[in-house]
Amino acid sequence: MDEFELIRRFFDRAPPSGLELGIGDDAALLRAGRNAAGEAESLVVTTDMLIAGRHFVSAVEPESLGHKALAVNLSDLAAMGARPEAFTLALALPEVNEDWLEVFARGMFALADRHGCELAGGDTTRGPLTISITALGRVPSGSALRRDHAEPGDDLWVSGALGAAAWATRERLAGRDATLSAAARRRLDWPEPRIGLGLALRHLARAAIDLSDGLAGDLGHICERSRVGAQLNWAEIPVAGELAALPESERIELALAGGDDYELLFSAVPENRSALTALGTRGSVALTRIGAIVPGTGVTVLDGRGRTVSVARAGFNHFA
Amino acid sequence: MDEFELIRRFFDRAPPSGLELGIGDDAALLRAGRNAAGEAESLVVTTDMLIAGRHFVSAVEPESLGHKALAVNLSDLAAMGARPEAFTLALALPEVNEDWLEVFARGMFALADRHGCELAGGDTTRGPLTISITALGRVPSGSALRRDHAEPGDDLWVSGALGAAAWATRERLAGRDATLSAAARRRLDWPEPRIGLGLALRHLARAAIDLSDGLAGDLGHICERSRVGAQLNWAEIPVAGELAALPESERIELALAGGDDYELLFSAVPENRSALTALGTRGSVALTRIGAIVPGTGVTVLDGRGRTVSVARAGFNHFA
Repeated sequence: MDEFELIRRFFDRAPPSGLELGIGDDAALLRAGRNAAGEAESLVVTTDMLIAGRHFVSAVEPESLGHKALAVNLSDLAAMGARPEAFTLALALPEVNEDWLEVFARGMFALADRHGCELAGGDTTRGPLTISITALGRVPSGSALRRDHAEPGDDLWVSGALGAAAWATRERLAGRDATLSAAARRRLDWPEPRIGLGLALRHLARAAIDLSDGLAGDLGHICERSRVGAQLNWAEIPVAGELAALPESERIELALAGGDDYELLFSAVPENRSALTALGTRGSVALTRIGAIVPGTGVTVLDGRGRTVSVARAGFNHFA
Repeated sequence: MDEFELIRRFFDRAPPSGLELGIGDDAALLRAGRNAAGEAESLVVTTDMLIAGRHFVSAVEPESLGHKALAVNLSDLAAMGARPEAFTLALALPEVNEDWLEVFARGMFALADRHGCELAGGDTTRGPLTISITALGRVPSGSALRRDHAEPGDDLWVSGALGAAAWATRERLAGRDATLSAAARRRLDWPEPRIGLGLALRHLARAAIDLSDGLAGDLGHICERSRVGAQLNWAEIPVAGELAALPESERIELALAGGDDYELLFSAVPENRSALTALGTRGSVALTRIGAIVPGTGVTVLDGRGRTVSVARAGFNHFA
């Protein structure tokens, strides 16, 4: 059983009445009332837990750990088109190490400050190093980018380039951390939540998700929630430069099934192609059209000759 | 260094601009806009992390664990006078045990449903058993019960009776769990967040806190945040019946410094005495006047003859 089934079976119940959107998307939506301008807003809520030895190696520098622990949550807000507002931090530490805490806090707050996201509460306790963050954001009512809004005929787009974080993880686990390029290390340890892109996509995209578990697996979540299928064109997928020298089977696996990219994958009507191309050109991150939503179910990857590409792993599974 | 210092030193920064109230209270306050009736509201946010072996023994039944993990968060909302609305759950599990999950979820949802509080997101991962919950509630703007609003001359009140949970913890750790009364076990494993009382206190209390670390320590937080002192009258403190047979030194320690009671401690102007007495009589939990806020700093406990009572421990310290 993977973690998604786990959540669904025990914690996803009948449609909740008080929530606009419950479990099953990047974040939940709650009615937030009307802002000072009289506009109805939704509160966007997401939570992630990082555990040493599972989501990162203990030796990872605390500054990047502080950054990444918050970044993975802000990435969920970005995938909803939300503006970050506040977060809570629950932190279990094996010991009180002041140097570690200072550097960890520095990494976390540097990212928080760039997005105007404020620490609104915390809990610290002794235990195996565990970081649990809940992030809150806001979006105008009806503007949130949801996983369940894709429709056949939509284009599929992705931001940035894929696979470098998964490759860097593999190199690090193989003891080759020292030979990683600064760029590869940055992709893994300092992911940049695509907040600005998410805001820009509110009126351009239909469905969206952030890539934490891998392109194929995360696209599968969109398909399942939207009750559609998807076709990806392998030749169009923006593969990270770090993977250039690898055999194609490895490139496919890392780009399609490797996790930790924290790019945005989204669907949009074909009428928005020129606007999205312009956004990718003038924005801070490239946008690439990589496939389409189709009727049916499941994700198919086609090579340049229209043949199906086999993907070994369906995405990172926390209980695999 | 205790956990409170830890939070303050590394995570409590200059007054945050976007928050109505930041770190240092039972929960933070964010502007939530205006509700359907046009009333300005605040969003109330709190987070707590429970770790097996530290906050509970692994053998504790999962149904009560599910209840308690949510209850300690709802208790923080109660201490702010907030109405619960939603919560997120991050759960690390050493293994996927379906029976355990089903019973854990049952305990959690039974409490959530009683308070109309809905699960709005989750994360599950493999790791040492850890439960991190963030709870969200709502309160009319300006009506939240805060730790920093006590003033000299206020009466001090507490709900319920104190010390049974700390006593039950001690008995359990000494291997005498089997001899615990059902009532004592209930006090420790099934604490009842005082949500209804918190709502009723919005217009009757000035400062409030929930008792998680012990009466003396938690009152110390009110004193520190409000820049006042406090005097407790030992003879007035409602000590749990379970402690009746113990020597007075132990009764004092368990009632004043034992944690896990999850009752509300609050200050109120003397003009509200009769209203609070009536509330305690007709409400679901007794209210007892146990002392007063005074000028100065620190907490003093007086016995029946006006002599100072010594308290051995200042409250449960997660890093002690």
